[in-house]
Amino acid sequence: MEPTLESCLPLLSQTPATLTALLQGLTPAQLDRNEGGDSWNAREVVAHLIHTDQTNWMPRIRHIIEFGESQPFPPFSRTGQRELDLSCPIADLLKQFTETRHVNLDALLALQLKASDFALRGHHPVLGIVTISQLLSAWTTHDLTHLHQLIRLLADPFREAVGPFHRFLGVLQCQGHSSPA
Amino acid sequence: MEPTLESCLPLLSQTPATLTALLQGLTPAQLDRNEGGDSWNAREVVAHLIHTDQTNWMPRIRHIIEFGESQPFPPFSRTGQRELDLSCPIADLLKQFTETRHVNLDALLALQLKASDFALRGHHPVLGIVTISQLLSAWTTHDLTHLHQLIRLLADPFREAVGPFHRFLGVLQCQGHSSPA
Repeated sequence: MEPTLESCLPLLSQTPATLTALLQGLTPAQLDRNEGGDSWNAREVVAHLIHTDQTNWMPRIRHIIEFGESQPFPPFSRTGQRELDLSCPIADLLKQFTETRHVNLDALLALQLKASDFALRGHHPVLGIVTISQLLSAWTTHDLTHLHQLIRLLADPFREAVGPFHRFLGVLQCQGHSSPA
Repeated sequence: MEPTLESCLPLLSQTPATLTALLQGLTPAQLDRNEGGDSWNAREVVAHLIHTDQTNWMPRIRHIIEFGESQPFPPFSRTGQRELDLSCPIADLLKQFTETRHVNLDALLALQLKASDFALRGHHPVLGIVTISQLLSAWTTHDLTHLHQLIRLLADPFREAVGPFHRFLGVLQCQGHSSPA
């Protein structure tokens, strides 16, 4: 298998099951809690992953195949998940993400990309030239960025409760690392 | 349910399924890679979680119930997982962790702790006085600390491959946060 696919596919494939295992048994309080301000709760993170799978990664790969660098990708809203219904049970959001990801990975494999296709270039409206290989790697690392965020979010309520163990628990030292768009 | 149990149990219960979903489909290269130096690979993280479940959390809760503050907890080795066989398939390590965690949570529930028991105090050899409530919260946050570490470890190989997307991918900015023992 082409090296980018070989490293990305196992991770992209398992994100729905990982998220489901992580979130499906949590209490409403755990699912509704954010990290303060306009930070996201767990429901919003899952909705963001549904939205990005629907509008960002595979559509942009198809855009590169169709238009190359000749047209920039259509703009993408990082808050488009607000259009989704977040009041539904978390199981429904997880199921929707699982189905969306499944459809996207089937579509990716159906493209039957050749080794040389991974170097095809597109025009990102903010970042400039990006390749299909970079898009696939970023899709995978985007999953991991939001898993990393969720784990930190779930640990946050234990900040005081762990008492003197605090210094041994690295996740409580994480302040997040996201850059503005 | 007592508040500490209500927040810890859903997380402690699902860590085996989350780890299994995250790791079971990965390639040997992904499972064997560490973050350089003497940092741990994914197998070592799972083995560490098995080892701490066997020797640390529930044994210390039992120790508090039996001895209170009168005797410090027996010392715990943070590298005791080296005694486990890490050459076995990752599925075997995940199964062993799942079984160990299941036995421990059954034992925790069998204690039928009363609300007042969560304030019982023990003597940690490094941290001094800790309560059962703090031990349970630390057990939960210890799971999350190692999930956070694993997610960062799995993202690390994509550092160059994502190209200009790097700045949007917070997990790639995480340098880890663990304090020395």
